[in-house]
Order: sequence, then C-alpha cells, then structure tokens
Amino acid sequence: MQTLDPLRPLDLVVRRFRDVLPPEAVITDPQRLRTYECDGLASYRVVPAAVVLPETAEQVRGIVATCAEHQVPFVARGSGTGLSGGALPHAEGVLVVTSRMRAIREIDLANERAVVEPGVINLDVTGAVAADGYYFAPDPSSQQVCSVGGNVAENSGGAHCLKYGFTTNHVLGLEVVTPDGELVRLGGDARDAPGYDLLGAFIGSEGTLGIVTGITVRLMRSPESVRTLLAGFDSTDGAGAAVSAIISAGVTPAAVEMMDALAIEAAEQAVACGYPEGAGAVLVVELDGPADEVEHTFAEVERHCREHGAFEVRVAADDAERAMIWKGRKSAFAAVGRISPDYIVQDGVIPRTALSEVLGRIARLSAESGVRVANVFHAGDGNLHPLVLFDGAEPGAAERAEEVSGAILDLCIEHGGSITGEHGVGADKVKYMGRMFTPDDLDTMQRVRCAFDPAGICNPGKVFPTPRLCGEVPGPRRGVHPLTEAGLADQF
Amino acid sequence: MQTLDPLRPLDLVVRRFRDVLPPEAVITDPQRLRTYECDGLASYRVVPAAVVLPETAEQVRGIVATCAEHQVPFVARGSGTGLSGGALPHAEGVLVVTSRMRAIREIDLANERAVVEPGVINLDVTGAVAADGYYFAPDPSSQQVCSVGGNVAENSGGAHCLKYGFTTNHVLGLEVVTPDGELVRLGGDARDAPGYDLLGAFIGSEGTLGIVTGITVRLMRSPESVRTLLAGFDSTDGAGAAVSAIISAGVTPAAVEMMDALAIEAAEQAVACGYPEGAGAVLVVELDGPADEVEHTFAEVERHCREHGAFEVRVAADDAERAMIWKGRKSAFAAVGRISPDYIVQDGVIPRTALSEVLGRIARLSAESGVRVANVFHAGDGNLHPLVLFDGAEPGAAERAEEVSGAILDLCIEHGGSITGEHGVGADKVKYMGRMFTPDDLDTMQRVRCAFDPAGICNPGKVFPTPRLCGEVPGPRRGVHPLTEAGLADQF
Repeated sequence: MQTLDPLRPLDLVVRRFRDVLPPEAVITDPQRLRTYECDGLASYRVVPAAVVLPETAEQVRGIVATCAEHQVPFVARGSGTGLSGGALPHAEGVLVVTSRMRAIREIDLANERAVVEPGVINLDVTGAVAADGYYFAPDPSSQQVCSVGGNVAENSGGAHCLKYGFTTNHVLGLEVVTPDGELVRLGGDARDAPGYDLLGAFIGSEGTLGIVTGITVRLMRSPESVRTLLAGFDSTDGAGAAVSAIISAGVTPAAVEMMDALAIEAAEQAVACGYPEGAGAVLVVELDGPADEVEHTFAEVERHCREHGAFEVRVAADDAERAMIWKGRKSAFAAVGRISPDYIVQDGVIPRTALSEVLGRIARLSAESGVRVANVFHAGDGNLHPLVLFDGAEPGAAERAEEVSGAILDLCIEHGGSITGEHGVGADKVKYMGRMFTPDDLDTMQRVRCAFDPAGICNPGKVFPTPRLCGEVPGPRRGVHPLTEAGLADQF
Repeated sequence: MQTLDPLRPLDLVVRRFRDVLPPEAVITDPQRLRTYECDGLASYRVVPAAVVLPETAEQVRGIVATCAEHQVPFVARGSGTGLSGGALPHAEGVLVVTSRMRAIREIDLANERAVVEPGVINLDVTGAVAADGYYFAPDPSSQQVCSVGGNVAENSGGAHCLKYGFTTNHVLGLEVVTPDGELVRLGGDARDAPGYDLLGAFIGSEGTLGIVTGITVRLMRSPESVRTLLAGFDSTDGAGAAVSAIISAGVTPAAVEMMDALAIEAAEQAVACGYPEGAGAVLVVELDGPADEVEHTFAEVERHCREHGAFEVRVAADDAERAMIWKGRKSAFAAVGRISPDYIVQDGVIPRTALSEVLGRIARLSAESGVRVANVFHAGDGNLHPLVLFDGAEPGAAERAEEVSGAILDLCIEHGGSITGEHGVGADKVKYMGRMFTPDDLDTMQRVRCAFDPAGICNPGKVFPTPRLCGEVPGPRRGVHPLTEAGLADQF
C-alpha cells in the first residue's frame, strides 16, 4: 500500500478514481506501471504516475473532468502500437488506457456504417462485417493489434490508402471528451454537416484535443476481385518509372509498394519470401474492383512493368500466393533486425514525381556517411519508410544514424513533401516541426489547441515544438498599424 | 464626393484603402453598393458600407489587417451565388469581393493538382485541364458562374458528390488570411500533413475563419466512359426502392437524382425535357469509369430499375441525349418559377434508408397545410431539395411556407439527418442550429471561432445562433467539482 499525500493534486485525483472506479481499473503499482512506459517507439520511455482503464464514455468523461479540476496532465493510449511516441506517458500524469472499451455498439449495413468504441481492434471491425461483404478500409500494418481509437488519433493509413485514403476518409462522426471533461459529438451521419468540420481537425490531432469514446466508421463493400503481382527490377529507377507510367495511364491501384535491394535481403533472411533473385528493387502492385475491370487493368499494369525493365513479373494465382507476396513486404520492418542490431524507422513523404531524385540523394547520404539505409515504401503516394541501420554498441553510431535520418526529412521538405506520412509527430518529430512550418502556421495550430486545452494538460509535449503557456501564444495581433509596417506602405 | 468623418473607424479604413488600392478597387457609391446587397438568397438584403476588390493575396492581407486594426467587420464574397446568405454584407462593414483574383497560378499534371486563386470560376478549372484528360470534380449546379473560393467557403457539392465527395475531398492545401491579417498555409501537397488538419475545419466554415487567397486543388482523370439513363416510375416509393437496390448491390453511381411529379411538371413547362409521360417520379442515374466496367454495371442498374417498377427506361445514346436528360434536372429549381410565383429552396439530409418514410411525411405536411412542395434531390446520398411553393402576394402565404420549410428540417433532424446538405447555414439557417446541436457542441465550435476571431469581425452573424462576445463563451470549465455534480457521484 502506498501513502498518498493529500496535498498533491495527483494523489487527490487517484483517490477519487479509487472511490469511483472498480479496483482493477486504477493502477499505481510501480511494477505494473512500467508496462506502459512506452508505445511502439521504444526509444522514449516515461513511467506514468497512474494508469486508469475506463469501460464507458461516462467514466472517461469523469476521469478527464477530475484531471481538469486538479490540472493534472493526462495522456490517452489505445493498443500502444504507435511509432512516434504519441502515447508516451507523462511522469506526473495519468495514462488513460482505452483497451477495455471494446464494444461494437451498432452495425448498420443499410447505411454502410458502424459505431465502435475506441479500444476495438482495427481488424475486428472488418471481422464483424466480412460475412456480409463489407470491410473497414484503413489497414496499418499493425491492424491485427492496433485500436480504432489509436487510428483516429494518428489518422492511420496503410498500404491501401493510395486508393482508399486514410482513417479521416472513413470516419463519419466521433463522440469525444474534450480536455475540460465535456462529452461532445463531432461530425455526424449525414453528409457535409453544418458548422465547423472539427472532425477533420480532431482526427490526426494525436491525442492533444481530447479523448475519443465512440467512432462512427464508414463500411466499404468488399471488392469483387483482388489481384496482386510482384515485379523484379534491376534498380529503384526502373521500378519508379514503372510506377509513374501506371499512374499516368490513369490507373489507381489499391496498393503500390516498393522495396530496395537491402530491404529485400532482410525480408529474404527473415521469411524466405522468394522474391526475384538479384533484384535491385521489387514492386508489389495490387488491383481491386469489379472482376472485368481488374482483369483488363491488370494486363495494362503488367505491360508497364515490362516496358520499364521488369525482368520478372509474377502474378499471384491464388490467395496463398498473394499472402506470400505480401509476407515479404509486411515483414520488412521487423526483418531489418536480422541484418542490423538497431535501426530507425523513418517516415517521410515526397511528391511521387521526385521519387528517383530523392532515392538518389538518400543513396549518396548513405555512401558519404557510411550509414546503411534500406528503403521500403508506399510508392504510389510517395510515402517513404527509410530504415536507417546502426549498431548501438558502436560509439557515435546512434548519433550518426539520427543525423542521416534527419537529413532524409530535410530532403523530403526540400522536395515539397512532409516529415511524416502516417506515423505522426508525437514526441519523436517535435524537433522537425519548425523546419516544415512557419511560426505563423504553428501559432495558428496552437490557438486551436489552446481553445480546447488552455491549461495544457491534454497530452502535453507532443506535436508542438516549443511548449509554452497558452497566454504566450501570440493572439490575433493588436495595435500594429498595417500601413506603417516596414515595406508594406505601398501594398499595405 | 462623400464626406468622410475621420472619427468613424469605417471611414478611417476606407481612407486607407483609397491611399493604397487602385481607385476602381474601392466602392462607396450607394448606387453601386446596392449591386452587392444580397447573394443567391435574395430574401435577405443588406447594403454594405464599402466594397473592395483586391487583386492579390497581399492586398487581401492588408485589407483584413486594416479592418482588424479598427475592429471593422468584413465579409468575403466570391461570385455571390450562395443559397444561404453566407455572403450577406454587414451594414457597417466591408465586403471583400474576390472576383478579380482569377489567376490559375500553376498546373502540375504529373502530381495531379493545380493552384488557383479564389475568384477562378469552378468550370474554368476543368476548362484549363480538360484537353489533357483531367477535371475538377465538385460540380454545384452553379458551376458555370460560382467561384472556387466560394466552393471552399461552403464546401460545395453537386450531383456527382455521391461518388466523388465534396470540395473538401478535392482541396489539398489553402493559403488563407486569418481574421487578424496573417497569411498562413493550411494543409499541403503531401498526404496526411503533420499538425492539425485545419484545412478541413476551414473548408465549409462559411467565411467565418478568414479569407482564402490560394487553393491547391486535386485534379482527377476524366473517366473513359460515362453513361446516363432516365427511368420513369409511378411513385417516389418505387424510385426510392430502386435506389436502395442499386446501392445495396455494391454499385456506386456517379450520380443518382430523383424528381417527383410536381418537379417534373415544372421542368416540362420550362424546358420541354420530354421526361416519361405520367411519371410520379423519375430517376437520373449516371455511371462513369472504365468502359468495360460501366457497360457491365449499367445493365445491372437497368435491371434494378425495371424490377422496382420502372415503366420506362431510356438510355442516352450520345452526348446530346445525355445533355437533354440533365437539362430537365438542372433546370428544376428555376423551372419551379413557372408554376409558382415564389418558392423556398430547402436543403436537408436524411439517411438514404429513410427516404420513403420522409417523403411520405412531407406529402402529409403538404396536404395538411395546403402548401405545395416539389421534391428534387440527390437520392444517392439522401440530400433533399424540397421546393416549397407560395404566392408572396397572398397574405400569410410566405409565413405558412416558411413553417412547412422548417417542419421539413425537423423531419430531417428527427431521422438522424442534417439541416443542410450543401447550401450551408449562412444567415438563413442560424435559427435551426440549436435544433441540431447541443449547447456544448455549439460552444466547442465557438471556441474555435474565438481562437481565430476573438473580436467577432469576420463574417459576423452567420452560422452561430446566438452571437455573443467571445469572453462569454464558456471556456473549459473551472472550479466544478466533478464528484459533487448531481447524479454523477457513482459514475463520476
């Protein structure tokens, strides 16, 4: 039994939790707290002061209202699979874990939607409606374990978001507890609801605007036909040219994935996926839709691959072969552990047209620094996942890898891209936000955050580079005479 | 020459505009101001105090900064085709008209996007890229005259948004002047940009969060094939059942439009579109995509129509016949002027599955009140456009029509729908917002508005039902002890 100091706001909050929640829903035992010290980004670790496991929206509301009352920071966590440290706990705060909120509240096939709680596992949504010919489209590679609440926080994508978009394209409405403990609804079932579309702002806000307690998701009809091919190329240049040709022809594949030689090597060692021998790059292209259309377009895709130098094109004859093709791709991140003791999973975006140029620059960065980089990416929409390899036991290696990793993000920004495609900013990329956004851009976002969370207790320290009190965020400017600002005399 | 009183903020502001802008860009002559007294909703009229016609983003920034400096209200206006009074001027304010900002700044076909200024006409975007096989998808029926800036403000849809979504689904980034005169970028070219997705919140905010000065739009490949049919039914029930059958079969038509007997009668009188004689309802169904797929699916759609009682199905053989089918539908609003001296264009949304029930209730409302209602709607996504007919010369008729019109919105809300599908809240539907949202929901939106516009000078009086000073919006609650709130003792 621990002693609770009644003067500490945190202890007051925990005492209230104990009064109201079932005993097993409040964790303060240091051993058990350690389980929650990190999410999928294990390089950041913080043990939370307390963990709560609510089962209802009303409990979440109460937990947040209690935290707000005592100005105690709180952080929401789903399955803890995020890769940017978005669910990294606060040492003086409460971690609100939604894993017990697993009810599928409603399935409405006629209107193609379902209402789920935040702890529901991504793949379980599809599981609940697959027999009726429906599925939930967002498919992060963690979909067997990640939660829909986490998908909403991170606006998760996946291999198929080239054609189907991100979580934000598949959520119709949210029930949310705001940082002051109000339960509100954002969006709705109807198209283009009146008022502000705060649904879009909330999705992908990485837990900084509140905690989601209910999600109305859009269900999609399962495609009549799915076909997958694997094409081997001498180089990423050839594979990249094939991707450009496919997209320019007006084809939108469900997925277009690329792996370079080092990534292929790792996958072979890990899962013996049997990718074309000696390939400098492989493409995985998947088409889905009505059978006639897929058949017709698939022939076109094969032709583009061959015309751009594919020396082998293998078409999956059945589901087992299709699974084998995907196995190589999906195992790539973990597989890299076979060829390097440590690695950083980077996540950046570039315009598709800059693929060849940026891959060349990454190769040069790698050669100059002696740091190996394996490339796995969603080629169709220019979302790179460079894996920066290093040996943590070697002095200075981690720092050099971090430097190369950051330089890759600079390349992305320089080419009009972004510092994250789907993993989020979280704790990890806070330091890069200033490279991508102007201070005015960031202040505009901060004003929204402050409108929801003026005390700064909702997932503090994430997303924004310079944590400051809301009173310090420049509000709308006052007392500046626009006509006397230097250089604006003629043109205001 | 008018006398300017140097003590009035408005006069100070106008004087500065005259110092800086070309003479023809500042209008204060009462005769000319009258041109701008209303938008497409002519039942609300207010003459603005001044009109400015900026040509550059920097001029917009200066205009807004000057207004902010002197706390003078301002309202943005594109082509003035909006149907909810969103561009209704403020009598003591400045109307900022973007019609001179008509440059298409950039076309980037390789990355399927273009950057346009807010005054660019919707159809001109398609015009600029059609020869290369691309188009801009949002297609409000005013697309020959409405501006892309106005589309962004209203999140405009159109007949084809069933398949392709709204403006918000086709805008990748915005350059925006915030209400304090800062020029910021929202969204971006890369997928899933980090930080808050304020792009979504801005799109559809009806001019209350700032003025857009540049829009990065997504370009789509023109479909290989487009086919259109017109089906005549005895009643809206049969037509509604056909729509349900088509959607349930997994078909997503580009458009599914329905008109009832009264709307057909009006269209016949106006444009002699030759719709099936004696029809109680017609459906216009359009499919687009690869030729093989369209061919195959089209046969399926025809079958569903016949199985649900279509007594005539007419397939457009060529573009001329296709245009004729659409002519009836597109003329319907104006055509109603032939059969009634006055009418209200209503805009509400219901779940598709409630179509039959709600149409029945509207018919009963009409019978009980003696007010005729013609129905024209985007049946595929349940967006109704009831046209409520009346004769303004008849005492009390306008009030009765307004009452029926409001009762229809209540029906929409009751069935889980919305008070506007695509026309917006503007000045017109402010009074209905409280029926759809709880005070907590509205306060959440108000907080965002106040974060951008604490002085309340940016399109004041629109969207929100109870205009109040930002200091009066309940901020995040303080000092409320969650455990002592009535009824929450057990469950917080």
